[in-house]
Amino acid sequence: MLYRRLGTSGLKLSALSFGAWVTFGSQVARDQARNLVAAAWDNGINFFDNAEGYANGRAEQVMGDVIADLRLPRDGFCVSSKVFFGSAVDPAPTQRGLSRKHVTDACHAALKRLRVDYLDLYYCHRPDADTPIAETVHAMDILVRQGKVLYWGTSEWSAMQIQEALDVARRHNLQGPTMEQPQYNLLHRDRVEREYAPLYAEAGLGTTTFSPLASGLLTGKYNDGFPAGSRLGLDDMAWLQDIVLGADGAARLQQVRRYTALATELGVAPATLAIAWCLRNPNVSSVILGASRVEQLLQNLQALELVVALDEAAWGQVEAVFA
Amino acid sequence: MLYRRLGTSGLKLSALSFGAWVTFGSQVARDQARNLVAAAWDNGINFFDNAEGYANGRAEQVMGDVIADLRLPRDGFCVSSKVFFGSAVDPAPTQRGLSRKHVTDACHAALKRLRVDYLDLYYCHRPDADTPIAETVHAMDILVRQGKVLYWGTSEWSAMQIQEALDVARRHNLQGPTMEQPQYNLLHRDRVEREYAPLYAEAGLGTTTFSPLASGLLTGKYNDGFPAGSRLGLDDMAWLQDIVLGADGAARLQQVRRYTALATELGVAPATLAIAWCLRNPNVSSVILGASRVEQLLQNLQALELVVALDEAAWGQVEAVFA
Amino acid sequence: MLYRRLGTSGLKLSALSFGAWVTFGSQVARDQARNLVAAAWDNGINFFDNAEGYANGRAEQVMGDVIADLRLPRDGFCVSSKVFFGSAVDPAPTQRGLSRKHVTDACHAALKRLRVDYLDLYYCHRPDADTPIAETVHAMDILVRQGKVLYWGTSEWSAMQIQEALDVARRHNLQGPTMEQPQYNLLHRDRVEREYAPLYAEAGLGTTTFSPLASGLLTGKYNDGFPAGSRLGLDDMAWLQDIVLGADGAARLQQVRRYTALATELGVAPATLAIAWCLRNPNVSSVILGASRVEQLLQNLQALELVVALDEAAWGQVEAVFA
Amino acid sequence: MLYRRLGTSGLKLSALSFGAWVTFGSQVARDQARNLVAAAWDNGINFFDNAEGYANGRAEQVMGDVIADLRLPRDGFCVSSKVFFGSAVDPAPTQRGLSRKHVTDACHAALKRLRVDYLDLYYCHRPDADTPIAETVHAMDILVRQGKVLYWGTSEWSAMQIQEALDVARRHNLQGPTMEQPQYNLLHRDRVEREYAPLYAEAGLGTTTFSPLASGLLTGKYNDGFPAGSRLGLDDMAWLQDIVLGADGAARLQQVRRYTALATELGVAPATLAIAWCLRNPNVSSVILGASRVEQLLQNLQALELVVALDEAAWGQVEAVFA
Repeated sequence: MLYRRLGTSGLKLSALSFGAWVTFGSQVARDQARNLVAAAWDNGINFFDNAEGYANGRAEQVMGDVIADLRLPRDGFCVSSKVFFGSAVDPAPTQRGLSRKHVTDACHAALKRLRVDYLDLYYCHRPDADTPIAETVHAMDILVRQGKVLYWGTSEWSAMQIQEALDVARRHNLQGPTMEQPQYNLLHRDRVEREYAPLYAEAGLGTTTFSPLASGLLTGKYNDGFPAGSRLGLDDMAWLQDIVLGADGAARLQQVRRYTALATELGVAPATLAIAWCLRNPNVSSVILGASRVEQLLQNLQALELVVALDEAAWGQVEAVFA
Repeated sequence: MLYRRLGTSGLKLSALSFGAWVTFGSQVARDQARNLVAAAWDNGINFFDNAEGYANGRAEQVMGDVIADLRLPRDGFCVSSKVFFGSAVDPAPTQRGLSRKHVTDACHAALKRLRVDYLDLYYCHRPDADTPIAETVHAMDILVRQGKVLYWGTSEWSAMQIQEALDVARRHNLQGPTMEQPQYNLLHRDRVEREYAPLYAEAGLGTTTFSPLASGLLTGKYNDGFPAGSRLGLDDMAWLQDIVLGADGAARLQQVRRYTALATELGVAPATLAIAWCLRNPNVSSVILGASRVEQLLQNLQALELVVALDEAAWGQVEAVFA
Repeated sequence: MLYRRLGTSGLKLSALSFGAWVTFGSQVARDQARNLVAAAWDNGINFFDNAEGYANGRAEQVMGDVIADLRLPRDGFCVSSKVFFGSAVDPAPTQRGLSRKHVTDACHAALKRLRVDYLDLYYCHRPDADTPIAETVHAMDILVRQGKVLYWGTSEWSAMQIQEALDVARRHNLQGPTMEQPQYNLLHRDRVEREYAPLYAEAGLGTTTFSPLASGLLTGKYNDGFPAGSRLGLDDMAWLQDIVLGADGAARLQQVRRYTALATELGVAPATLAIAWCLRNPNVSSVILGASRVEQLLQNLQALELVVALDEAAWGQVEAVFA
Repeated sequence: MLYRRLGTSGLKLSALSFGAWVTFGSQVARDQARNLVAAAWDNGINFFDNAEGYANGRAEQVMGDVIADLRLPRDGFCVSSKVFFGSAVDPAPTQRGLSRKHVTDACHAALKRLRVDYLDLYYCHRPDADTPIAETVHAMDILVRQGKVLYWGTSEWSAMQIQEALDVARRHNLQGPTMEQPQYNLLHRDRVEREYAPLYAEAGLGTTTFSPLASGLLTGKYNDGFPAGSRLGLDDMAWLQDIVLGADGAARLQQVRRYTALATELGVAPATLAIAWCLRNPNVSSVILGASRVEQLLQNLQALELVVALDEAAWGQVEAVFA
């Protein structure tokens, strides 16, 4: 495994990490969850990503049980939670968002579900227009001082919002955000590559990126449509189709078909190639993998070798597809 | 239910909330208290107001028992306490006021009586001329950092006193006050509408207002005097009569009679109309309702519909009565 | 009882308070200690003064047991400790002084002996030339933030040393000292009246003064020498004789004899008069009384009436004796 | 025993102290460890030095057991730990270094192994190029505020790195480093005497020095080579030979032989002389002794007398050998 610093912080995360989104607590049975975490850990993954909103808190519960069951050493792994969407099925007004109350309540709930004394990483899962950024930064700072959170950050915030959080922290001598968790893949790269660019240099921002396969699109499995049973084929994931494909869906799908063909030509799995591509960006601290089967996870882990095995000419071809 | 932010904070309170003053621990039996809290909660009320001084701490005790008994989710409701008057029948010099000692002792006592780990809102129930504001702000800041209080504020402080608390907090990098709890009703509106005006814009102050019915006066039930058995007819509430009616009592009572007539004309209960009027002020975060019977509470909740149902002409007529 | 603010702080102490020095844990049996605290409390005394160095910690232990036994309400009384001399018979280098280590260890030990969760007042019992004042201020600030101490102060520090502590606190945004515990009586008044004068006005310093009877001298009982069995007659108190009488011992003793005669003339006990005299100074927050018998304590409490009963002419005569 | 302040701090350490490096948890049996700590304590040593990295945490475990077993008074002794190398045999990326995570995890682990509530001294065992100094200072500050650490410092940092830590602390109002733990002996003195010089005067830095005998070299026992069974003769200590002797090993060894001869001439043990020499430097707060036998420890303690017994002429001769 390759380990990278979380931005300029001293925390070293495995360059590939494991996320519980849309699998733990819903698609995947507890035994399978245990196998996945065990395989991840055995292969050097030390960061397990989670959120209060994943399967209404059940993803954290399953992960907490599995980690306790596997007796992973607390100082050897990192676990995250994220606050914003709430864990209740129909969250009350105080049960979501980034108010001091919810940030605090959600942290305590996550600690309990994950069965740990502290969260290594705690994210604001989205910006909250109804809460001043200063209130959230103060709430996070208090959790850090109480020892309940080590590093806090954001997910899908704009560079300007992150900058404001950094400014508040500097002005009031508080712990500022250390990392962002953005979407990042061949189809969705602007924010990570352009918008956040000043934050890497000036604030040492780290990133833990999600959706390296664009919700599975880059595996090529949707090249001929969205079959029932696949993630994007799920009824309640229709919104995701729209997000992934966007306005120029047809053109994008065409690119993906050319990309898949190129991968075959290069003799590599399109998924592995897509993950390896993410790793090439030095501002990516860790690429979060989602997987519902161990074999899938192990295949994805081959991206670590691929990133060095492929030559620059090949990478140039990949870039050309999405130019 | 309608939810509003507490000033510019991220905390969302129900626009109508429930207070325990002069009912819990005294007038109202425990079973009845349980029914009231249950009805409030079932109707979307998420803020339960209390104080150490209400029935010498018994109001908090009853509310704590009832909330525990109803198993309300801790992250779904907000509970407050207030410090100043003490909970002892004959408080010793250290058992009241806003000294660091009493602010701290009273918080711990309220947490115990209310059976919670933290207070969502903690108010300085009155200004204390015998304690420097800075001492109180420091004491509140420490409670916030210890996780025992989320938001602290004041009740019946002058704008200048609130401003001083805000200044101390800014100067020393402490958590400043978030909200005020003032009296606010058709007969008593100057402070909320004029005196505090600069604090809404500049400091984002929220308000949780009490006495929307002017101690029952605006129901019209005192139009012909103060009957025995009514709140203002209670012997130990004589002081309240004076406060409510003031120097120009006769003229005020005349206004109330005209107001009651207007309500009848509009086909609405005077009480509901008076509460709806409070809600029209966007600087009011939550109107605290006192009720000793469930039916009374449910009637008061109709103010939520009334505030949108009534047209501007009707509201103009209401204003004209008290012009 | 008369209550006074501790300087400009919000803490209200009884103007006469009760100290455990040279009595608890040594001269006085536990039953007698219980009677003394009970009598003090019944007469409105709310401040019980102690120190780690009094009878090597036994004074705190006895007081803690007695207070627990009497079930005094924690928010109704104030208890102090002082750190510097250590509680060990032969203190090791880390078991005395004002290092961060000893200030912290001594606080924890005092909390345990006094059987309380926090100290209302915690004093630096002497200045410590071997510890930077900043280190002590930081250590005190941390204890205040942890909720283990409410107000901290000094005892027998020079005005300049107190000023430095205040400066450090202001510069680093820390909790500064609130009070001093100096000796103050008719024979020893310069420091309280002159040296500390600027600190009352500018920093709101409070004072809890000890030795109002100049170690018994002002009772007149040593007018004819130091009898065996009296405090100043104790072998191990020889050093105190020197301190009390000083270089011009003979002249002082002569003043005391004239003072005693004047008291008799005015029809009051010399001790009561001496205590009442201390109370006349508005910068004295509380006069700490030492007593080994209940009757003695009750007599001393009469100073509260005496201070208002005596006219200015009489006070003028008292002053003239010591001019 | 002689006691010295740790730099300008108020903490008084025995000028000779006892370290567990390369003995506890490995060379030395538990009974022997108990005898060594007991002998050290009985002779006035109050500082016991340790690190997570000594024998993979076993050194701390043994010391914790022994201290508990001997019932040493917690306010009478000081115990240290150091963070950097990790305690795992093959530390994972998050199990070593100075990240906020490892600094925090390692503190908790050391508290548990040493069976204490707080560490008196906590060192950054080496600089960590992969962690910003500010992150480490913040992590240490939080541990100090939580009461888990009293004084923190560094070991083998450059003056510039220490200066940066001091600057960060001043700028952000945090607890800065109090002491350094450098190597210091007749063969290795530049850093302590020159590089750190400005830090003593300007920042009051204290030093607890290790290796007074240059890993045994100054005892003269390696004058004729490195015998099997001796520390520098151990296979896994080959790296230490290189460090101790360095590039000009032959010349150094020659100096040592002349030094040994001089000691014999002066009638003192070379080891005792070397330790006494360290004590002559007033910027050395405490010289840490390593010993695997009680007799060896007792002999080393004679350095306390030697340092005053020897005249300046003799010390001049010692200096001349290493000129």
